Amino acid sequence: MITSTANQKVRNVVKCRKNGKERRRQDVFLVEGLRMFAEIPDEQHVETFATEEFYEKNTELFENRTYELVAEHVMEAISDTRTPQGVVSVVRRYHYAVEDICRADNPLIMALENLQDPGNLGIILRTAEGAGVTGILLSRDTVDVYNPKVVRATMGSVFRVPFCYVEDLTGCIGELGRAGYHTYSAHLQGTYFYDFDYRNPTVFCIGNEGSGLSDALTDATEHRIKIPMTGKVESLNAATASTVLMYEAMRQRIFK
Amino acid sequence: MITSTANQKVRNVVKCRKNGKERRRQDVFLVEGLRMFAEIPDEQHVETFATEEFYEKNTELFENRTYELVAEHVMEAISDTRTPQGVVSVVRRYHYAVEDICRADNPLIMALENLQDPGNLGIILRTAEGAGVTGILLSRDTVDVYNPKVVRATMGSVFRVPFCYVEDLTGCIGELGRAGYHTYSAHLQGTYFYDFDYRNPTVFCIGNEGSGLSDALTDATEHRIKIPMTGKVESLNAATASTVLMYEAMRQRIFK
Repeated sequence: MITSTANQKVRNVVKCRKNGKERRRQDVFLVEGLRMFAEIPDEQHVETFATEEFYEKNTELFENRTYELVAEHVMEAISDTRTPQGVVSVVRRYHYAVEDICRADNPLIMALENLQDPGNLGIILRTAEGAGVTGILLSRDTVDVYNPKVVRATMGSVFRVPFCYVEDLTGCIGELGRAGYHTYSAHLQGTYFYDFDYRNPTVFCIGNEGSGLSDALTDATEHRIKIPMTGKVESLNAATASTVLMYEAMRQRIFK
Repeated sequence: MITSTANQKVRNVVKCRKNGKERRRQDVFLVEGLRMFAEIPDEQHVETFATEEFYEKNTELFENRTYELVAEHVMEAISDTRTPQGVVSVVRRYHYAVEDICRADNPLIMALENLQDPGNLGIILRTAEGAGVTGILLSRDTVDVYNPKVVRATMGSVFRVPFCYVEDLTGCIGELGRAGYHTYSAHLQGTYFYDFDYRNPTVFCIGNEGSGLSDALTDATEHRIKIPMTGKVESLNAATASTVLMYEAMRQRIFK
């Protein structure tokens, strides 16, 4: 059992927790908690740190997995949460390309431009999996999917929904349009989104929480679509808007 | 200008910020930031604290409003955020009754049981306003709408969407059902929600983030409805599920 935070492995995990660049350099990310631990695909799992209490309660989950037991105070140093659940894992990153995002039958793709809120991005991944989205494209300046807050909010969908950061998202959306995808920008000036048919290859573009989609990306899409809003609401939360669009596509694809 | 955090008024605002009971006792809540300040209805406004810089940039917004200028470090003591926007207001609470929630033409009501995440509740209020929800019922044990994190996430909808904490939410839903409302519980075992008609008086019940709706409240509703989910997603975030249901009702009410 590791009882000192000066332990080399522990110091490395703490470095990865605090430093996004270091995570990238080591090609890993960290996941916490029982539920996430249980969902890590074996081929991505690198190493797990657990308290003795957690290990004893969940021994069957450690089969075939490299792990170290750590003292409670070491877990507190490793964990990103105030009340650690007793397990933190180092997980190998995914490396999807745009082609992977497009490989599915009848793709349904979310393209996210400059999203900054980790909770929003995490919820979009989780909802995307539920709504049958086949992949997610992200602009370079969108918050890091491997940020611990994002990972936590995905509730495991980070292991299953393909995503890819794109250097030039606007150019990419233009190319998808020319390749036969229907591309839609969520916009305050647009046609009600209910008026379109999303049963063919579809890309929904969602912009930054404060400023919305850039004009360039908006112009690169085939249609501007608007979500109706009553009252004095000026815009919806980015995850909310994404949810409305993804579930409308789901409704049409399953029930029409 | 108030330059000391020992000032009686400043001490009172800090007390209100830190202490939910104190806010309740004084029948007020606090709102922060330019956008929220601009949206406070005059009849609810009690007093505003602003930095000189904020006041000078937004003087027109202070017309007819009681205010005090405060030094930057006093604002930091008052503010609930790490980067204060320079304005905090004390606002009179609303006191809606269940009858107020039901007074609208063709009510569309969200009933929330034991929701705990302030961000979720705030987003539900914001989305509810956008989707034409006429009022929100909350179980006694749901997080406080006047919690600063909830207020912030509503983006002003807290001023416009009627809401009411109910001692016995299960009993209340039963009564609404007998009064002719169609009541629906969001449930993992149920009929796909697309199969119902929400164009008449409707109540959607949403449960706690971790444990879902109680059996008692579920049993008190007319129908169990299920949101389809693909992949390995076991449940949706409470705000996400609410969004899907509210916007389906919106779709039917506007476009059918």
